[in-house]
Amino acid sequence: MPQESRTITVSLAADPYPVLIGGGLLGDLGFFLLERGIPSGTRVLMVTNPDVEAFHGARALQSLEASGFVVRTLVIEAGEEQKNPATVAAIHDAAFAHRLERSSLIVALGGGVVGDMAGFAAATWLRGIAVVQVPTTLLAMVDAAIGGKTGVNHPGGKNLIGAFHQPKLVLIDPLVLATLPEREFRAGMAEVIKYAVIGDGILFRDLEAAAERDPSGGLASRDALGPVLLQRLLERSAAAKARVVAADEREGGLRAILNYGHTLGHAVENLSGYGTWLHGEAVGLGMLAAGDIAVAMGLWSQADQDRQRRLIAAAGLPMDWPDLDPEAVLVSLQADKKVRQGKVRFVLPTGVGSVTIRDDVDPTTIRAALAVATSIGAP
Amino acid sequence: MPQESRTITVSLAADPYPVLIGGGLLGDLGFFLLERGIPSGTRVLMVTNPDVEAFHGARALQSLEASGFVVRTLVIEAGEEQKNPATVAAIHDAAFAHRLERSSLIVALGGGVVGDMAGFAAATWLRGIAVVQVPTTLLAMVDAAIGGKTGVNHPGGKNLIGAFHQPKLVLIDPLVLATLPEREFRAGMAEVIKYAVIGDGILFRDLEAAAERDPSGGLASRDALGPVLLQRLLERSAAAKARVVAADEREGGLRAILNYGHTLGHAVENLSGYGTWLHGEAVGLGMLAAGDIAVAMGLWSQADQDRQRRLIAAAGLPMDWPDLDPEAVLVSLQADKKVRQGKVRFVLPTGVGSVTIRDDVDPTTIRAALAVATSIGAP
Ligand SMILES: NC(=O)c1ccc[n+]([C@@H]2O[C@H](COP(=O)([O-])OP(=O)(O)OC[C@H]3O[C@@H](n4cnc5c(N)ncnc54)[C@H](O)[C@@H]3O)[C@@H](O)[C@H]2O)c1
Ligand SMILES: NC(=O)c1ccc[n+]([C@@H]2O[C@H](COP(=O)([O-])OP(=O)(O)OC[C@H]3O[C@@H](n4cnc5c(N)ncnc54)[C@H](O)[C@@H]3O)[C@@H](O)[C@H]2O)c1
Ligand SMILES: [Zn+2]
Ligand SMILES: [Zn+2]
Repeated sequence: MPQESRTITVSLAADPYPVLIGGGLLGDLGFFLLERGIPSGTRVLMVTNPDVEAFHGARALQSLEASGFVVRTLVIEAGEEQKNPATVAAIHDAAFAHRLERSSLIVALGGGVVGDMAGFAAATWLRGIAVVQVPTTLLAMVDAAIGGKTGVNHPGGKNLIGAFHQPKLVLIDPLVLATLPEREFRAGMAEVIKYAVIGDGILFRDLEAAAERDPSGGLASRDALGPVLLQRLLERSAAAKARVVAADEREGGLRAILNYGHTLGHAVENLSGYGTWLHGEAVGLGMLAAGDIAVAMGLWSQADQDRQRRLIAAAGLPMDWPDLDPEAVLVSLQADKKVRQGKVRFVLPTGVGSVTIRDDVDPTTIRAALAVATSIGAP
Repeated sequence: MPQESRTITVSLAADPYPVLIGGGLLGDLGFFLLERGIPSGTRVLMVTNPDVEAFHGARALQSLEASGFVVRTLVIEAGEEQKNPATVAAIHDAAFAHRLERSSLIVALGGGVVGDMAGFAAATWLRGIAVVQVPTTLLAMVDAAIGGKTGVNHPGGKNLIGAFHQPKLVLIDPLVLATLPEREFRAGMAEVIKYAVIGDGILFRDLEAAAERDPSGGLASRDALGPVLLQRLLERSAAAKARVVAADEREGGLRAILNYGHTLGHAVENLSGYGTWLHGEAVGLGMLAAGDIAVAMGLWSQADQDRQRRLIAAAGLPMDWPDLDPEAVLVSLQADKKVRQGKVRFVLPTGVGSVTIRDDVDPTTIRAALAVATSIGAP
């Protein structure tokens, strides 16, 4: 057993599940499945990526087999472009070939792409079999793996095809982040900062302490954080996500606050062309712009916006709003899923740890925020 | 409003929904959507088949548009072979093209194939949008449209890909059966007889009365039944299905009794080659054989088995067990989804209106039942 580990519960009425967080837990994956009531002998399909499989596959497999699970591994090429119905079909084919039954299990070992696809394949095989999420990117640990949103992309848009399907268990082992490319780590940190701003002042101050030690990189890597702070950030982020999910399992309302930074972030992703920005990088830019909008609307102070800015800088995330036509951004906002009856909904900060949802943001205010972001960001 | 109509409620804890049954209701589809709280102006994608669209599409469309719904119709070729992921993708494409939102609706106007596919497409678009089932075959009215099982076939087997997704509303208009081919009607009657045997002695006696009037066709067509008895059969069958579904939404246990006649029925379907038997015809054969097994095991009387046999005959269903290698049947049973830990589970009648589930049926008993069925059935 690892020295320090913690369990957070996602308290859903129907089927609460644990999120285990601790260095080294991956080596005990099989044990934790047994502990969760999944019997030895259960057939398991483990879905993963080539890199993840190369670095961590053996450890997971060994642990599962040592506990008596009957495992088959399916390795899927990495990349967002794999997140489509054809890959789901490939997972279903493997599920059939491995003779998965209703009581069988899919284990998603990888980042958000693997988690979303494998989760959706589990949701739709035999009308839903169990899935266990073992996230291996920072983003998946704090966000994608928790909450039961699964799905794949449609040519018309991201995540249009999907289902809610809560995992049986989420197992987070920070040690696997040792092999994660640092750019991916930084992108995940954007979501950690998001949780701090939308609902966790304590997390915010933890992040500030690290940012003060090293303003240009204190939040940018696993090594800069150190294991103790990393464990703490993971715990607080997972707890924040778990709270929101428990309060609003199916995105009726509250869950919308998780979209902080995402409204403009998605516009950046859509307009910049595939592969220019990682999701978290775009979210960082979106939070910067949302903060400026909130300042312009008198919702929060310039001082707090500067504090947010310092965290994003310490995470080594891009600070320069990209050179995009503001009118194209406005059009892109209209096409977003978060539009209701033609009104764009913004999550805007009102203080460190609190946000509000507004659908009355003036296009002029948006244009001005984009201009501010560009001029400040310019070198 | 039609002269005689009735509402049965599927009493699910989370989201109970009504099943409306009455001649002429299709012409009021739009009204009933409004009544169910789906606002005028909602975007609706109506999925249907060529024949159904030709006979009943205009009526449905007119009613929807008169109530202010924004409708687009997608016509899909008929046939079980269409029930696959490619057709789901086509429905998703239409959902995208018609700009369906989370609050939009899919209407399934057709038999079980349309209902299963459109229901699954709704379950997986934007992580689940509403579906309204408007069944147009007898089988879909009494079975497929009620209960939230949706899905499509995988090359490895029927309905392997799917999800539970309860409809918002089920609207059953017996008048649409006027255009249903009679063989399809007879196949649906097998499921009505199933409900009678597994749980509704009153329904059983209603069926017997019609069978006594005409032993070789009293249950075989809409005309033979007449509108009053048809309405009554639909109500009792829908109520039977609704009860079982409410007690066991996700097939944890009780719902298994709905598989009466289906264990051997599926073997007949699988071994006879595609298109030989309609599902309901195979279920009829399966009920005959299951009845013989129950008699052999001393679970129910030969007299009751004879009563069941008379109903199946009066429905004009096939009575001759097909010329299949009994050993092939036994192998096929093992491959069925209803196998648990290698044991085949049979639903067996213990009286008119009651069944039991057994996983200890001796292969010798099965072989004997198949021989009995063949010899009795032989001309
Ligand atoms: N379901 C949700 O609630 C939710 C929330 C947020 C994001 N998402 C989805 O998550 C996806 C993005 O996920 P992501 O950022 O994790 O990207 P990703 O899954 O594409 O992983 C990024 C890259 O890192 C590699 N990798 C992963 N773990 C590694 C490790 N430990 N060592 C070395 N390499 C490793 C992968 O092979 C991949 O190349 C998007 O598709 C997004 O839509 C889902
Ligand atoms: N979801 C469930 O719980 C459930 C239960 C039982 C069966 N099913 C599924 O239902 C399917 C079988 O459904 P089905 O028996 O309704 O067959 P079907 O949907 O294939 O319809 C049979 C034929 O009748 C035509 N048709 C339908 N209504 C008509 C009408 N009123 N007038 C003229 N023609 C009409 C159709 O175009 C089709 O050619 C199978 O795929 C089965 O797996 C699902
Ligand atoms: Zn995000
Ligand atoms: Zn059936």
